[in-house]
Amino acid sequence: MVATVLCVCFAPTAAGPGIPEIKAYLNGVDTPNMFGATTLVVKVCGFQIERYHFTFITSNSHELQFAQKIIGSIGAVSAGLDLGKEGPLVHIGSCIASLLGQGGPDNYRVKWCWLRYFNNDRDRRDLITCGASSGVCAAFRAPVGGVLFALEEVATWWRSALLWRTFFSTAVVVVVLRAFVEYCKSGNCGLFGQGGLILFDVSDVTVKYHVVDILPVAVIGVIGGLLGSLYNHLLHKVLRVYNLINEKGKLHKILLSLSVSLFTSACLYGLPFLASCRPCDSSFPESPCPTTGRVGNFKQFNCPNGYYNDLATILFTTNDDAVRNVFSTNTPTEFHIFSLIIFFALYCILGLFTFGIAVPSGLFLPIILMGSAYGRMLGIAMGSYTNIDQGLYAVLGAASLMAGSMRMTVSLCVIFLELTNNLLLLPITMLVLLIAKTVGDCINPSIYEIILDLKGLPFLDAHPEPWMRNITVGDLADVKPPAVNLRGVETVGRIVDVLQNTTHNGFPVIDEEVVPPIGLATGATELHGLVLRAHLILVLKKKWFLQERRRTEDWEVREKFTWVELAERWWNIEEVAVTKDEMEMYVDLHPLTNTTPYTVVESMSVAKAMVLFRQVGLRHMLIVPKYQAAGVSPVVGILTRQDLRAHNILSVFPHLAKPNGSEKGH
Amino acid sequence: MVATVLCVCFAPTAAGPGIPEIKAYLNGVDTPNMFGATTLVVKVCGFQIERYHFTFITSNSHELQFAQKIIGSIGAVSAGLDLGKEGPLVHIGSCIASLLGQGGPDNYRVKWCWLRYFNNDRDRRDLITCGASSGVCAAFRAPVGGVLFALEEVATWWRSALLWRTFFSTAVVVVVLRAFVEYCKSGNCGLFGQGGLILFDVSDVTVKYHVVDILPVAVIGVIGGLLGSLYNHLLHKVLRVYNLINEKGKLHKILLSLSVSLFTSACLYGLPFLASCRPCDSSFPESPCPTTGRVGNFKQFNCPNGYYNDLATILFTTNDDAVRNVFSTNTPTEFHIFSLIIFFALYCILGLFTFGIAVPSGLFLPIILMGSAYGRMLGIAMGSYTNIDQGLYAVLGAASLMAGSMRMTVSLCVIFLELTNNLLLLPITMLVLLIAKTVGDCINPSIYEIILDLKGLPFLDAHPEPWMRNITVGDLADVKPPAVNLRGVETVGRIVDVLQNTTHNGFPVIDEEVVPPIGLATGATELHGLVLRAHLILVLKKKWFLQERRRTEDWEVREKFTWVELAERWWNIEEVAVTKDEMEMYVDLHPLTNTTPYTVVESMSVAKAMVLFRQVGLRHMLIVPKYQAAGVSPVVGILTRQDLRAHNILSVFPHLAKPNGSEKGH
Repeated sequence: MVATVLCVCFAPTAAGPGIPEIKAYLNGVDTPNMFGATTLVVKVCGFQIERYHFTFITSNSHELQFAQKIIGSIGAVSAGLDLGKEGPLVHIGSCIASLLGQGGPDNYRVKWCWLRYFNNDRDRRDLITCGASSGVCAAFRAPVGGVLFALEEVATWWRSALLWRTFFSTAVVVVVLRAFVEYCKSGNCGLFGQGGLILFDVSDVTVKYHVVDILPVAVIGVIGGLLGSLYNHLLHKVLRVYNLINEKGKLHKILLSLSVSLFTSACLYGLPFLASCRPCDSSFPESPCPTTGRVGNFKQFNCPNGYYNDLATILFTTNDDAVRNVFSTNTPTEFHIFSLIIFFALYCILGLFTFGIAVPSGLFLPIILMGSAYGRMLGIAMGSYTNIDQGLYAVLGAASLMAGSMRMTVSLCVIFLELTNNLLLLPITMLVLLIAKTVGDCINPSIYEIILDLKGLPFLDAHPEPWMRNITVGDLADVKPPAVNLRGVETVGRIVDVLQNTTHNGFPVIDEEVVPPIGLATGATELHGLVLRAHLILVLKKKWFLQERRRTEDWEVREKFTWVELAERWWNIEEVAVTKDEMEMYVDLHPLTNTTPYTVVESMSVAKAMVLFRQVGLRHMLIVPKYQAAGVSPVVGILTRQDLRAHNILSVFPHLAKPNGSEKGH
Repeated sequence: MVATVLCVCFAPTAAGPGIPEIKAYLNGVDTPNMFGATTLVVKVCGFQIERYHFTFITSNSHELQFAQKIIGSIGAVSAGLDLGKEGPLVHIGSCIASLLGQGGPDNYRVKWCWLRYFNNDRDRRDLITCGASSGVCAAFRAPVGGVLFALEEVATWWRSALLWRTFFSTAVVVVVLRAFVEYCKSGNCGLFGQGGLILFDVSDVTVKYHVVDILPVAVIGVIGGLLGSLYNHLLHKVLRVYNLINEKGKLHKILLSLSVSLFTSACLYGLPFLASCRPCDSSFPESPCPTTGRVGNFKQFNCPNGYYNDLATILFTTNDDAVRNVFSTNTPTEFHIFSLIIFFALYCILGLFTFGIAVPSGLFLPIILMGSAYGRMLGIAMGSYTNIDQGLYAVLGAASLMAGSMRMTVSLCVIFLELTNNLLLLPITMLVLLIAKTVGDCINPSIYEIILDLKGLPFLDAHPEPWMRNITVGDLADVKPPAVNLRGVETVGRIVDVLQNTTHNGFPVIDEEVVPPIGLATGATELHGLVLRAHLILVLKKKWFLQERRRTEDWEVREKFTWVELAERWWNIEEVAVTKDEMEMYVDLHPLTNTTPYTVVESMSVAKAMVLFRQVGLRHMLIVPKYQAAGVSPVVGILTRQDLRAHNILSVFPHLAKPNGSEKGH
């Protein structure tokens, strides 16, 4: 509840996994306050409270009375919501990276000289990518998996330098993690000293499989793909309902979280009563059986001595330990299939209803929980048909559900390799991932795309739609309001007018009646470039006005504007006051103009324009005419990200959408 | 020698690793005959002969006499040149992919309908990338490493779809490999049944390290980086000398290969006499000691019974087994440091002098051999200072030298993980790789960049040079011969003239005096697009001429030209015969013109134009004027890859190169 209140009242952007927003940011969409200090604090706090609460409650020792146990268990499971930590950690990593890059929170920035090297879009994007990969690395102790996750799922643009930068950041994370693991092994960290560098180690089992095992592996993949896309579909519906509830106000948000929390508690505590007691088996590799306290795998719960409750074993523990239990190898009799079915059904429901509530939440762990139960169930069902251990089935099941829902391949493969440390499992893991992804892709888009779409973020896909080849950028420009052009030396009045009456962020600068180069007729017009709104406002703020219409000298500009000011984007036209006299004065826009904007000819197809826009990472693209003649404006229009979104184009040109065969070729 | 003769006489492109050429192809540079059938056959044959030869010789059994042994050993080591198989395998993979994509060798193509889907640049590139990753996967049995190698080192453009396509191809490779391994375990494959899915398994040793071990790890990295860049530097010199020798003719090439081969033989056979005999130790984990035949690690050579020659152990074996021996863990006394020094020195010399000879050759294994010896030497030198096993030192040494020479990070990390199956080694491997790469990058470019540069391939780097921001594409166009423009409906005579007198591959098509849209002055000119040389020749070949100057209809074009013909690029102007009467006729170029070429305004900086050129993967880029007036041509010039190469620009504008501070910012 504290986590919810924090999220609702202080930083709504801290809710959810944050990965879709980071993905959109790296695609060029800036969500306001996404990487601010408040978001970071709330994310960390909310996250820590969830975890702290849990640690506190589970620290009940053997001696506690039954009554206390009930309350404690309710508390424990109330904090033990079906949420992962990797989404929040990715977001936390990105927040830290962003704050470091800009020298601190907006209001208390350190103005170090070297920080200016990060004050540009590309380096900010790089930093945020590094943060995201560090987050995955910290969550799964999977350094290479983190790099690949950032590459495959998060980043839009990729270059070789970014690859080793993310690799470097995850290397630092893993070395620090390793140092802490070593330090904590000597018992200095209290309850936190558990776990090595490999979270779910299944390397103790030798993988024996033959050609006939291809069949069950394919079955895991196909069912995993189906289940994953079904999960995506249902989660989409649930999130739409939640959006309606959340719009009603803060109280509704808090109540929603609270009810999900209570429901989780009730289920986790109540359901183990349904399971029957199982006798302890001396062949189990570890820990005493049964146990009653925090430590140990085989929870006694309501069973007599010498027996354990298998459902309580996986419900009365941290999510990590639950996964570790379901993955456990060489324990074919540990779980009854009935308990696994209950576990699977419960986590399907929780996974659907928990994700959308207003707390920091990740998707990986819920899906791994579901998938591992499904895999182990399948392993038990296969029975003697297969040689593969049930624990490995659980691993494969988890992998298949992840691939079916998130549609990643290489990064999931490496993450699972690093989680389970079983290299011989690699070939079948690869097959399962590919099959599940292919099956899922036939049915619906990946979960992150669904969330991006729900949030309405203008994400630009890598592939233009096929119909985009049948429309030119000239057609798009025709239906837009005409571009607002400025002259090279413009009056202050016109600039103020343009800034107040439009919301454009870029304006073409055109010189009319230029002194023509030799060989040109007089009366030529020249496209000088593109000037940004932020720079226009800066000019007005600094009152860099000229009495007469003239070009300025270089030194005048350098004297007036610093590098840092020009990199800022936070000015607002409302803050500017211009007197009536000043309105008559002039501004020379030439020195502030970007003289080399990317352009397309008006006959360019939208598909190709979009490839250019996305590949080069643009904000504005000028359209130049294909005709050369006196009286033609050198700029036909200006395109932004919103103009190139399929949805927006279709709303103006609905006839394009009609399916005229799958002409995917050329 | 057979391998050399094959390479020299039939397919010179089969020599060397092939990776730089593949890298250049994926960057947009087509090396003629690089992916042809002859190249494939020679590569496979040369490769197979090397291997077959070797297998034949090493199959000497225990009963052979000493005289035979000498001859056999000479033969064995003559084939056992210091070359890796991964470069050739990468090239073989790409050749197969390319041939599959085009339906067979050039002269005997299968004309299947579905093959046309691959007959475009992008899909060919994708196929070749998949082939390259499969090659690495087959060489190292490292599926994920193969994908990452293709991503980090080979590919220029990357998209999400390509990621899972390469992943799919390596998954198939690893499943097939796994099936063969299983089949061969039952002894069906004769001599080929050795080795599991993990080539150099060092997972049997538990990695124990503490904070103090950071120091030796850093030392490995720094020295590895230095050695790697030193190797790059020396190899550059050797290759330049070899280039001079190779220019003198085929005989010189063959003699060069032969002398390197003989030198290798002499060293491999002679040097073990320098090593002293070491007593067999019963604590060694495997195999009888000493052994005399093909099998077994501890070669007796010239030693009495109960003793083995440690240098012979690593020289009288396949390269793979040598690496496996040097990587062997828990054997601190197996090698004397003196033997390792000889081994290291020998392989440094061989590594430098073998690579450039005219046989298919890879760089990975020679560097791993050098690096492992260096690492193990360092491990012995560290003595009791460190807890890390000597075998792991050898692994780290190999990794550091690879990173120091090839400058890859993530892919090497995963390849080493998959080669050695020791996940706990990951953090220090990452550190070593990063340190070695950083040290190397400070000194010289990576080995592949050096080879690309030596071969004179016009590779476009990801980063434009800083001085490219100070020159515009207009400046470049001014110093070039003016672009040759065609009119929309052009005479046959002019087309023939243009094709014969220029070597351009693209011509702008401009309509003059078009009927202007409303609002334009008469006499407007229109940029219609770009027509390719191949299409012009096709028109001439098919004699698609018009009696009068008119526009054609869609159906006329569709009747005359098929999709497949237009995708071909192999026509030649010399094959075309046009009569004098036909010279007076007309051709309507409109339907054959690409109406949406990418364009830049003449004021665009070369740096930004180059980013566009590379990111979108262009061959031609039109320059449009920034002025709008009557009489201005709608095309100022046309840029190709060669125009954008730093070297070529500097030869025209030498003043740009002068260093005016490291203005790396904006």
